[in-house]
Amino acid sequence: MIETDISNLWGAISFPDLMAMEERLSAAHKTLSEGTGAGNDFLGWYHLPSGTTEKELDEIQKAANRIRRNSKALVVIGIGGSYLGARAAIEFMNGTMHNDTAPVKIYFAGNHLSTRALNEIVTRLENVDFSINIVSKSGSTMETAVAARMFRWLLNRKYGPDGAKERIYVTTDPEKGKLRAMTREEGYTSFPIPANVGGRYSVFTACGLLPMAVAGIDIRSVMAGARQAEKELDLRSMENPAWLYAGARNLLYENGKKIEMLCSYEPNFEYVGRWWQQLFGESEGKDGKGIFPACAQFTTDLHSMGQMIQQGERNMFETVVRFAPDSRELSIEKDWKNMDDLNYLAGKTVSYVEENAFQGVVTAHVDGGVPVILLKCGAMDARTLGYLLYFFQLSCGISAYTLGVNPFNQPGVEAYKKNMMTNLGR
Amino acid sequence: MIETDISNLWGAISFPDLMAMEERLSAAHKTLSEGTGAGNDFLGWYHLPSGTTEKELDEIQKAANRIRRNSKALVVIGIGGSYLGARAAIEFMNGTMHNDTAPVKIYFAGNHLSTRALNEIVTRLENVDFSINIVSKSGSTMETAVAARMFRWLLNRKYGPDGAKERIYVTTDPEKGKLRAMTREEGYTSFPIPANVGGRYSVFTACGLLPMAVAGIDIRSVMAGARQAEKELDLRSMENPAWLYAGARNLLYENGKKIEMLCSYEPNFEYVGRWWQQLFGESEGKDGKGIFPACAQFTTDLHSMGQMIQQGERNMFETVVRFAPDSRELSIEKDWKNMDDLNYLAGKTVSYVEENAFQGVVTAHVDGGVPVILLKCGAMDARTLGYLLYFFQLSCGISAYTLGVNPFNQPGVEAYKKNMMTNLGR
Repeated sequence: MIETDISNLWGAISFPDLMAMEERLSAAHKTLSEGTGAGNDFLGWYHLPSGTTEKELDEIQKAANRIRRNSKALVVIGIGGSYLGARAAIEFMNGTMHNDTAPVKIYFAGNHLSTRALNEIVTRLENVDFSINIVSKSGSTMETAVAARMFRWLLNRKYGPDGAKERIYVTTDPEKGKLRAMTREEGYTSFPIPANVGGRYSVFTACGLLPMAVAGIDIRSVMAGARQAEKELDLRSMENPAWLYAGARNLLYENGKKIEMLCSYEPNFEYVGRWWQQLFGESEGKDGKGIFPACAQFTTDLHSMGQMIQQGERNMFETVVRFAPDSRELSIEKDWKNMDDLNYLAGKTVSYVEENAFQGVVTAHVDGGVPVILLKCGAMDARTLGYLLYFFQLSCGISAYTLGVNPFNQPGVEAYKKNMMTNLGR
Repeated sequence: MIETDISNLWGAISFPDLMAMEERLSAAHKTLSEGTGAGNDFLGWYHLPSGTTEKELDEIQKAANRIRRNSKALVVIGIGGSYLGARAAIEFMNGTMHNDTAPVKIYFAGNHLSTRALNEIVTRLENVDFSINIVSKSGSTMETAVAARMFRWLLNRKYGPDGAKERIYVTTDPEKGKLRAMTREEGYTSFPIPANVGGRYSVFTACGLLPMAVAGIDIRSVMAGARQAEKELDLRSMENPAWLYAGARNLLYENGKKIEMLCSYEPNFEYVGRWWQQLFGESEGKDGKGIFPACAQFTTDLHSMGQMIQQGERNMFETVVRFAPDSRELSIEKDWKNMDDLNYLAGKTVSYVEENAFQGVVTAHVDGGVPVILLKCGAMDARTLGYLLYFFQLSCGISAYTLGVNPFNQPGVEAYKKNMMTNLGR
């Protein structure tokens, strides 16, 4: 379902060097699947697609249906892995402007400390029935906790304590933490983030699935895609597209390519890019190592970053994710005056132009010294989404072990939190 | 109005080294102001704030008022510098969700070749009175031309040729190009992008100002801020915040910092970041040189990129843009059960927490080996916006000449276009 096309890398890395990675990739995959490496208490994601029961999905769908019945808006309160997967999926499936037309608007809060941005959401809830979904594994993340207290307060004022309870959904650790304790005390509807699933690997838990279901996405199709990936990508050979991706990017890094740009030609892909940025950046950026993950939208950003990609420092490579064209094609009409000189394209589709632009970009960038990895995916649908997200998770685990770091910890993110708590008198 | 705080750079660069930049910065500024350097036929932006007449602003405002009277949506059709400034300004002033509540929704098209994304806009225009603003200096940019032909066709079907004409606004070269010829032929309302103003320096022409005015932004305040910047930043000494910024980033680059992250704590700043990315990336990314410009939103991205910033490769620095808090403060309420353990913050504001987070982040990142340049701005308003955009334009010109490249050309962006045109049979 995904093909990793490495035919635009030669010059930057050699075929024998890539094939010689096989042993390291095989060892990394084995370390993951047998749970013998650093961070092996966070491998719950590995069999999450096949291990999630119909009953668990039913419960998520039931809660989503209730929200869709009694709410015109859902505020998802979470940061990092507690919102990026959900937002990525919703924009991928329903578009960046999904709230314009959705029966239930989805707002993301608790992922910053901006008073302005909080006020903007609160304003939009004034005369609207809404529910909230508090998402935090630890239950003590500051951004999320502050916003959760505020939105709980608003719900209490609007619906009274009993009414509010029916509109608060919690996704957190099944046993531990302040948010779990609050959930028990108050009797909120809740969903578990298994203790052995880290934030950036949690998209296939209720973290991702509940908001997706509220947005009307078929979560069973998403999980079917993920299950297919879990099965197919277990392949132990250089035929595995995850091995090729993990191997190629490590070799490029070893050869001085310090920046990876994840590019797509679909504006709706943007937050999948941000989710990917956390996945790889947080998994690999440690011990003074790690590729810097950046995102770009083409052709959009060819008119901003294109110059630098073509002729700036030669320290970057691209990973381009390609999807099949939209089923509703747009044709370029004939114009008898032809003042814009486009009649040579009359009768052609926009996606025909796009495909030719894409081909032209690959050639130009490779000529300019920027190697291009192509990830060829299928239709831009729920199944592809599930497959692709799992593909990236697996590739990341393999890639980080190949790099020689623990893919599952994030010791560096505590530094600013510690300073902040000290500043706040804690 | 802007202060460049360099007190968090020591260790990465030395004070004597920075002061020793004075001569190079002075020379670069002189090259700009006297127009003696490479690309000196593109210096029209330099005196644009003071050189724009009341009459010109009146005409833009008049067109905007007409659009606001007869349209519920404006489609801005442009790519790169032909939309980033407008989008940056509108999100900065009216928020990322501005279309939710605006009397005239602003859609951005012509900045990609995605059929899906085009379909999404077309769907939203079905039963809505709308106008379009075609923005292209050359008039022959593919993405823009394809979308312009489509939306002109839609307007013709909906309003007939005469009605459509009243709803098409063109911003392009005053004399040359296909779009100017079409404008003459059809009698569209039009605005000039002066021949000596490049796309990424065009925000203070109608490129930026017309969409801003339609969005209800006071363009005279924006221009007042820019005029103030033009005047104040003419200062020829190391007191000039633009010199400090340009000097510090060049020194950091010379010392191996290859990536600059522009960070703010305001989600509404995001597209100012993208505008900045084009400004600096396209101006400096050439001849195998140039800092890679990346954007981050804090505290949001501390939960995705924070780990890598703290402990990954030590090849980056941060430029953090700070604004005064929102005038409508949000207080943290007391909760008698205190299950989330936040009562120690009861009565405090969210911006108090944010300020402490910000301080904690600076300390953590500097401790981790990531130098931080602070740009302290005032309130998040139209005047600050105008000042800040001009500040970045001037800093970029000075910085690129200091780096030794032509800040005003973009020879590399033609490569993919040439390939695309060949592929399309042209």
